[in-house]
Amino acid sequence: MINILVTGESGRMGQAIIAAIEANPDASLASTHDAGQDLTAAIAKADTAIDFTIHSFTRDVLDAALKSGTRLVIGTTGHTDEERAAIVEASKSIPIVWAANYSVGVNTLFWLTRKAAQVLKQETFDIEVVEMHHRHKIDAPSGTARRLLEILNEETGTTYEDDIKHGRFGITGARTQREIGMHTLRGGDVVGDHTVMFAADGERVELTHKASSRMTFASGAVRAAVWLAEKPAGLYDMQDVLDLK
Amino acid sequence: MINILVTGESGRMGQAIIAAIEANPDASLASTHDAGQDLTAAIAKADTAIDFTIHSFTRDVLDAALKSGTRLVIGTTGHTDEERAAIVEASKSIPIVWAANYSVGVNTLFWLTRKAAQVLKQETFDIEVVEMHHRHKIDAPSGTARRLLEILNEETGTTYEDDIKHGRFGITGARTQREIGMHTLRGGDVVGDHTVMFAADGERVELTHKASSRMTFASGAVRAAVWLAEKPAGLYDMQDVLDLK
Amino acid sequence: MINILVTGESGRMGQAIIAAIEANPDASLASTHDAGQDLTAAIAKADTAIDFTIHSFTRDVLDAALKSGTRLVIGTTGHTDEERAAIVEASKSIPIVWAANYSVGVNTLFWLTRKAAQVLKQETFDIEVVEMHHRHKIDAPSGTARRLLEILNEETGTTYEDDIKHGRFGITGARTQREIGMHTLRGGDVVGDHTVMFAADGERVELTHKASSRMTFASGAVRAAVWLAEKPAGLYDMQDVLDLK
Amino acid sequence: MINILVTGESGRMGQAIIAAIEANPDASLASTHDAGQDLTAAIAKADTAIDFTIHSFTRDVLDAALKSGTRLVIGTTGHTDEERAAIVEASKSIPIVWAANYSVGVNTLFWLTRKAAQVLKQETFDIEVVEMHHRHKIDAPSGTARRLLEILNEETGTTYEDDIKHGRFGITGARTQREIGMHTLRGGDVVGDHTVMFAADGERVELTHKASSRMTFASGAVRAAVWLAEKPAGLYDMQDVLDLK
Repeated sequence: MINILVTGESGRMGQAIIAAIEANPDASLASTHDAGQDLTAAIAKADTAIDFTIHSFTRDVLDAALKSGTRLVIGTTGHTDEERAAIVEASKSIPIVWAANYSVGVNTLFWLTRKAAQVLKQETFDIEVVEMHHRHKIDAPSGTARRLLEILNEETGTTYEDDIKHGRFGITGARTQREIGMHTLRGGDVVGDHTVMFAADGERVELTHKASSRMTFASGAVRAAVWLAEKPAGLYDMQDVLDLK
Repeated sequence: MINILVTGESGRMGQAIIAAIEANPDASLASTHDAGQDLTAAIAKADTAIDFTIHSFTRDVLDAALKSGTRLVIGTTGHTDEERAAIVEASKSIPIVWAANYSVGVNTLFWLTRKAAQVLKQETFDIEVVEMHHRHKIDAPSGTARRLLEILNEETGTTYEDDIKHGRFGITGARTQREIGMHTLRGGDVVGDHTVMFAADGERVELTHKASSRMTFASGAVRAAVWLAEKPAGLYDMQDVLDLK
Repeated sequence: MINILVTGESGRMGQAIIAAIEANPDASLASTHDAGQDLTAAIAKADTAIDFTIHSFTRDVLDAALKSGTRLVIGTTGHTDEERAAIVEASKSIPIVWAANYSVGVNTLFWLTRKAAQVLKQETFDIEVVEMHHRHKIDAPSGTARRLLEILNEETGTTYEDDIKHGRFGITGARTQREIGMHTLRGGDVVGDHTVMFAADGERVELTHKASSRMTFASGAVRAAVWLAEKPAGLYDMQDVLDLK
Repeated sequence: MINILVTGESGRMGQAIIAAIEANPDASLASTHDAGQDLTAAIAKADTAIDFTIHSFTRDVLDAALKSGTRLVIGTTGHTDEERAAIVEASKSIPIVWAANYSVGVNTLFWLTRKAAQVLKQETFDIEVVEMHHRHKIDAPSGTARRLLEILNEETGTTYEDDIKHGRFGITGARTQREIGMHTLRGGDVVGDHTVMFAADGERVELTHKASSRMTFASGAVRAAVWLAEKPAGLYDMQDVLDLK
C-alpha cells in the first residue's frame, strides 16, 4: 500500500486525485496540503507526493521531498528553465515521475506522433498542432502540446525556439518547410483536446486525443505513484510507467 | 450573354474562372489579362471584369473599370484601408460585387454564423475561429475568416483591433469573455476549411465549411458577374447575389 | 434579478441548476425544495420555479405556483395526458416554459439545421447525420438525432420511413438524391455528439453539437427562467426563449 | 538523383506522376512513354519505371525492364494469375515495388491503427470506424476501410463476419465489448476520408486520413521509386518503402 500526499487539496485536480486514490486498491491517502499549511511536515508523512498545483510551487515541493526522501509525481506544466533544472537535479537523489500528461490515451498519442513524424517526412508533410482547453487555463500552449512539439522537434531536427509558430497574422509569406504551426484554443469547460496534423499535397493524416474527464489524468497519476514505489532515484515519464518505450 | 474579362489568366484561379465561364450558358469570355499587358484596353472590351489576382492590383483594376464603366467582381483579399476606401468610392459610379468568398456553402456559413452568434450569447459561449489553407497562401487569416470575424464583431459588440487573438503564447492568463480566438493553419494543398466554435460549460456548437475545389469559388464569381449585369451602381456582396438577406 | 426556486435540491439535476443560477448574473437562488418540505411556502418566495424532478410531481408544482402567481420552467418528461392538460390549463393564468430539451446548443442546432436545409437544396447537397453516445445507450439513433431527421424530412419532402439509411453495406449502388444517411456511433462515456453534413461537388457544410455535461441543460433552464420574467401568461418552449421562431 | 520513366504519359495518373517527380528533389524525369512508342528504348534510359496504366500492359513492361535491368514500380491492379506470376519471377532479377495503394498517408494509417489497437486494449477502448466517399461509389465500406477492419480484427481477435456492425437501428441494447462499428457516409465529390476511433471512459483517440487528390498516389509512387534505387533484386510493397514492418 502506497501512502500518498496530495497538494492543492481544495482544487479541482486535487479533488480528482483524492477520488482516484480511493478507487485504487494499491494506494491510500496519507495526507493533503493546501496553501498556508506546513508542506515539509505534510510531505514527510508520505511515500509519494502528487503535485498538480502550479509550476511556481515546484521548488518548494522539491525542497521538502529531498528532506524526507519522499518520491514525487509532478503534474504541473509551464516550468521555467530554472524550475526544470531543479527537477532534473532532484531526480539524482529521489525517484520522480515527470510527465506532461498522465492519461493512457495521450501517451499513446505521443508514441504515434513520433512514429508518424518518422514516416511522414517534413519535406513533404507540413505539420500543425491544435489544442483546446477550458477558458480558465492560464498558459499556452498546454504542457501536453509542448511535449508533442518536443517530439516533433526531435524527429524533424527543428527547435522550439526557432521553428514553432504560435499563431499567424498579417502578410506572413508562404509557409516554410521547417515551421510547425501551434494553435491554442480556449473556451468553455473543455477538459483537453489535442490534434497533430500532417498535410501534404493530396492528403492529410490527423492524430487526435480528446479528454472528457479529469479522472483520466488523476487515475494515471496515482498509477504512476504506485509504479514509482519500487524504482531507484531517477527521472521517469509516463512512457516508462506504461512500458511504451 | 455577359462578356467577361478575366485577370490573372495564367494563374490557378484565372484558369478556374475561364472554365466556369465556359460552363455557364449566360456568360462568355470577352478577353483575358496578364501582367505586362494593357489593362485599360482589355477591361474596355468587357461588360464585367473578374479579378482574383492580388489586392495591390485592385487600384489599377478600379481605375481602368471607371474609365470604361465596366462592372467589377472583386475576389482578392487582404486589402489595405486605402484600397478598401477606393473600392467603396468606385462603387458610387459602377456596380461592384465585393465578397470575401464566392461559394454558396461559405455564404451559408456567414449567415448561420450571424444567427448562431445572436442566439449563443458571448456572456456564456466563448468564440474561436479556425481556418486552414494550403502552404502557398501568403496572408493570415483568410479573407473568409476575416469576414466571419467581422460578422462576429458586429453581433457581439467587439472589434477586430481590440478583441481578436491571433494565436496565444506564454502566460496568457484566463481567457476573457470578449476575446475571439483566430487560428490560421497552413499546410499541404488544402483549398480552404473554416470552423466557427461556440464553447460554453457543458456544450459546444461548431459550424464548418470545407472547400475541396476552386471551381466552387469560380462558379460563384461567374454567377455574381451575370447577376450584376442588371444592377445599378452600388456595392454588393454574395449575400445579395444569393438572396440571403 | 430573478429569484428562482429549485425543486429536487439534492438530486443531480437540482445541484446542476443551483450551480447554473450562481453562474448567471441575472438570476439568484430564492429557495430550494426537497421531498417532505412545504412546497407552497417555498414557491411563494420565488419569481420563477424550475422543476426537473419527476412528472408525477407536476400537479403539486402547478397548484402551488397558481396560488402565488409564480412562473414555471418545467423540465420533466413522460407526462400523462391529464398532466399535460393541467400544464396547458395553468398556462392560461401564469407564464410557463415547457420543453423536452433545455440545451441552448441543441435548440440552436435544430434551428440552424432547418435554415441550412432551406438554403442548401437537396438537389445539390447530399445530407448525412452522425451521432455518438456512450456505450450504455440502448436505442439508435438518439432522440436528438431523430428530431434532426424530422426537421430534415420536413424541409426536403422526404420521410423517416422511406428515405433514412441506417448504415450502408455491400453493393449499394450510387447514392440517391433523396436518401439521408444516419450513422449511430457508440463508445466510451460520450455524453452526446451530433453532426449534420451537407456535401456537394467541391464543398461541405457541417453543423455539430457536442455535449459534455448536464450543465448544458441546467444553464438552458435558468436562461428560460430569466427570459420568462417579462412574459405574460402563456405556454412557451425553448424555441421561444431563444427567439428561434 | 533517380531518373524515372513514366508510362501512360497522357493519362491522368501519368500527368500526376510527372508532377510528383518535379516536386521531389531526389527524382528527375528520364523519359515518358505512350501507346505506340518504343517501350524498350524508353525504359533503357531510366533507373526506374513507374507504370500505372493497365494490368494487361504489365508483361511488356516486365520484358523491357528485364532487358535493361531497370527497376519497376507497379501501380496497376486486377492482374491475372499469369501476370502475377510474371511479376514474382521478374523480381528475382530486378527490384520491384508492387502495392495496391501508394498513398503514404493511408499506409501510415494502417500501421498506426495496428499499433494503437495493441496499446489501447479492447477491454477498455471501444472501436468505431467511419469513412466517407463521393456519391457515385457503389460499394460499402471502401476497400481501405475493409483493410482497416482486417487489421483491427487481427489485433483484437474479432472477425469481419461476426463482430463488425454496419450501422445501428432500433433497440440495440448496450454496446458489446467485442463489436466494431463501421459507418459508411456517401456524399458530394469526397475523394476519401477514413477515421478509426478508440473511445474509453474519459478519453478518445482518433486516427484520420483525408485524401483530396490523386497526387497522393503519384507522390507515393515516386517515393517508392527513389527508395528502390538502393535495393537488391526482390519484391517489395509500400510497407517496406515506408519502413513500417
